[in-house]
Amino acid sequence: MFIHQTLQRAVRLFGNKEAIVSGDVRLTYTALEDRIGRLAGALADAGVRPGDHIAVMMLNCHRYLETYFAAERAGAVLAPLNHRLAPAEVSYILNDGGITLLLIDAAFLPVYTACAADLTTLRKVIVAGGERDPRFTDYEQALMAATPMTEVARAWQEDDLVHLYYTSGTTGRAKGVMLSQKNVISNAKHMIINLRLVPDDVFLHAAPMFHLADAWACWTVAWLGGKHVFLREFSAAGFLNLVQRERVSLTLIVPTMINLVINHPDIGSFDIGSLRLVAFGASPMPVDRLVQAMQVLGCGFTHMYGMTETAPLATALAPEEMVPDGTEAYARRLLSCGREVVGVQVRVVRDDGTDVAPGEVGEIVMRGPNVMLGYWNQPDTTAVALRHGWMHSGDLATWDADGYITIVDRAKDMIITGGENVYSTEVEDALYAHPAVLEAAVIAVPDERWGERVHAIVVLREGQSADADALTAHCRSRIAGYKVPRSYDFLPSLPKTGSGKIQKALLRDPYWQGRERRVN
Amino acid sequence: MFIHQTLQRAVRLFGNKEAIVSGDVRLTYTALEDRIGRLAGALADAGVRPGDHIAVMMLNCHRYLETYFAAERAGAVLAPLNHRLAPAEVSYILNDGGITLLLIDAAFLPVYTACAADLTTLRKVIVAGGERDPRFTDYEQALMAATPMTEVARAWQEDDLVHLYYTSGTTGRAKGVMLSQKNVISNAKHMIINLRLVPDDVFLHAAPMFHLADAWACWTVAWLGGKHVFLREFSAAGFLNLVQRERVSLTLIVPTMINLVINHPDIGSFDIGSLRLVAFGASPMPVDRLVQAMQVLGCGFTHMYGMTETAPLATALAPEEMVPDGTEAYARRLLSCGREVVGVQVRVVRDDGTDVAPGEVGEIVMRGPNVMLGYWNQPDTTAVALRHGWMHSGDLATWDADGYITIVDRAKDMIITGGENVYSTEVEDALYAHPAVLEAAVIAVPDERWGERVHAIVVLREGQSADADALTAHCRSRIAGYKVPRSYDFLPSLPKTGSGKIQKALLRDPYWQGRERRVN
Repeated sequence: MFIHQTLQRAVRLFGNKEAIVSGDVRLTYTALEDRIGRLAGALADAGVRPGDHIAVMMLNCHRYLETYFAAERAGAVLAPLNHRLAPAEVSYILNDGGITLLLIDAAFLPVYTACAADLTTLRKVIVAGGERDPRFTDYEQALMAATPMTEVARAWQEDDLVHLYYTSGTTGRAKGVMLSQKNVISNAKHMIINLRLVPDDVFLHAAPMFHLADAWACWTVAWLGGKHVFLREFSAAGFLNLVQRERVSLTLIVPTMINLVINHPDIGSFDIGSLRLVAFGASPMPVDRLVQAMQVLGCGFTHMYGMTETAPLATALAPEEMVPDGTEAYARRLLSCGREVVGVQVRVVRDDGTDVAPGEVGEIVMRGPNVMLGYWNQPDTTAVALRHGWMHSGDLATWDADGYITIVDRAKDMIITGGENVYSTEVEDALYAHPAVLEAAVIAVPDERWGERVHAIVVLREGQSADADALTAHCRSRIAGYKVPRSYDFLPSLPKTGSGKIQKALLRDPYWQGRERRVN
Repeated sequence: MFIHQTLQRAVRLFGNKEAIVSGDVRLTYTALEDRIGRLAGALADAGVRPGDHIAVMMLNCHRYLETYFAAERAGAVLAPLNHRLAPAEVSYILNDGGITLLLIDAAFLPVYTACAADLTTLRKVIVAGGERDPRFTDYEQALMAATPMTEVARAWQEDDLVHLYYTSGTTGRAKGVMLSQKNVISNAKHMIINLRLVPDDVFLHAAPMFHLADAWACWTVAWLGGKHVFLREFSAAGFLNLVQRERVSLTLIVPTMINLVINHPDIGSFDIGSLRLVAFGASPMPVDRLVQAMQVLGCGFTHMYGMTETAPLATALAPEEMVPDGTEAYARRLLSCGREVVGVQVRVVRDDGTDVAPGEVGEIVMRGPNVMLGYWNQPDTTAVALRHGWMHSGDLATWDADGYITIVDRAKDMIITGGENVYSTEVEDALYAHPAVLEAAVIAVPDERWGERVHAIVVLREGQSADADALTAHCRSRIAGYKVPRSYDFLPSLPKTGSGKIQKALLRDPYWQGRERRVN
């Protein structure tokens, strides 16, 4: 099975059904097919040949979904770009990935302009929206001028590279995760199973579509004949408005977004009763906030874990497992990201590859049809990540006797202080339990005596106050003394990746300039 | 992914959960794993080597499920045998399939004894139940004596042959359908998606386990960690008893079984409220009976279509599509077997391979990871069935503009009378609408004037009566004159295959002795 077959099915079985709601644009699957065929034709007119690499940098909209399908139909490999990257990062990726054509929102043209002189392989730019610029091809004009490409331009094979996702890579240079048709199609089935997707579902693309945490939904929701609704840029008000107006039933967002939604002052005035399931992932969610979110949104929740390298789903805590039942087992389960999903093998292993005992910390490794081909042009990095067919995640976790996996930290976020391992997430959970704390990040900073020291960066709620002494006293009552932060920074906000993860490396790096930090 | 990984997951994630209810036997997944490991060890002790072909002939029970898993762990190919076959048919299959070991219920030993002298490859027999017989190995003794085989004996590949299903083949010699690991695992995912299987499901193995219509559930329900309940031989009372006692939530049965259940005189005295979904397939169900069944059982229904050659699922009419909504579209849909499921491509084509127009009759063809490797030792038959990667079903059908497929007949069951095509199922539907008719089969018999004549074989309800004239008058008011039966037989019962299909070939063949009947 291939990506184009998911759309073919939707067009044949659900041709007259509304497929797309994007701003003022509403399209049936038949109308969407016509636009995708035209875009594929336009790509061919622009010189794109099967096997070529092209890139896209857009905010969420129907054109992003069209690009995913049209690139594949034209036989090209698509590299979706994080639109928050600096020009130097963009030019690195475009050159490293051998990108020949770029589809870009007019709003991001300054990024292109800033790096244009450095680009070695790019030949063509297609611009969506904005004023017409004679230097570039306009997206809508190209569609109008093109002859629809109704047949796929390439005899795709299951192991062919189809998507190239450059990970935001908190350290080192960006890595291009190579995903095959088999990777993304097998993940689609796993998502259908775990989200119990049905044709009546209305999916809200709320997380950025350059990230696989949302992109999977393009071909997966289409496969079922569901409806796609697009939130151009995330805001709590925008989210709530669309859920209410379009009767959204399903979405996948990250904890920072959930946090914003449930803290929206007018949330009570929105009718969000259509929501049946909110999936979340990308980072763990403090338990207090999770319980609050379930109460406020009043729908099912499922915690999913995975990574771009696993296309992405690997584990899930099912909605019924997240319903409070008052047991101690429930409380433990809620801290976990669930268990391996059907179709993916997941283990927690020691350095020697053997399974850890229940409660012992090890690394999450994964195997299945969803595991990436490797990193583009980085055979050495690939060999480290993929050993004996297992993807090594770099995530530290425990599992219990029933296979529930609880992430304790990213390997590189763990703090080793005086020979003790301190998991940053555990300290953050303690901080989040303080009523004045809106956000918190805990990092390792160098310390003459202890090697590393526990350091906290805190954002306080508006109108609330708490100083270092108050937070230290609060933490002392909740976690062991050696885990309590020794120092604090108070900031108005925390830096986040495009997918909403707090960028701890950005916070940590200034402390380590000129020093080498050893991480397993 | 491979069959053994489905059980591994269940043991690791649901080890202490009840996996098996079979007569008085109750087993957790951990206990089941021990028995399967021991059976695999016993097979190896009996000389079974990776790649060997073995067979099983049993009634439904936990040992049948154990055999499916143990054969694969030992690296063997398993051929499940229809226990209603005559000795000559059994010996043909055992020799054709190169079977070296047979697991058999003691009750079926007479069949083995009757054909033992003709067997060319069989070396060993393991007998389940009955009195100990020194000529054979006893199943339970072998388990007790064996060392559990905890590792799979063979490095399975996805395209390796794992199951060999001899189809009951209504004409010609039996064909061994070769299914690969990929075939049965991809179908497992399709079943999970379409039945919306969850770990809490309790599945009743009610259809015979030698048929893929039930066998798929062995590894699929285990994969999810669900519970297996076994009905040794089908009876309406046995079915209702187990549903009530074990709180069965899900089963897959054939229309003739549903018919028996809903006509059970004491059905009102059983608590069957645990049933959430009844899947049915193998043959179409008259609409009147279907609506009655939905009312009487009060649960969801899903009509599934497929064949052994497609491992088996190809199309499904979803539960929500079967809920009466009073529209004309609903009435049409209910006659259909739904639409292609996610993961399988299904078309209705003309002889030249092009799609038929809505309403035009063509042949159902299917393509996907679930399509068989071919027929064992029959390359010519394989080449006819598998063309350009499409499995040609021999089923005649129409489809509408939305892709709903309605089977009109098996190609060989269609009657051509005076140049008109008469679909036997349409005439049977008319007969079933008569209150005195319990069962009906309509076949082609030779006719001097019209080439073929519409002939009906009817089973009347107990205490009811209707003669040929009454049925003819009834049919005239419902279907065109040329479709009305010209002659009748009244029988106390109709011959059925092990999977519950009426054996029209058995009814038809006597009329055609000494003549050749041409079928497209």
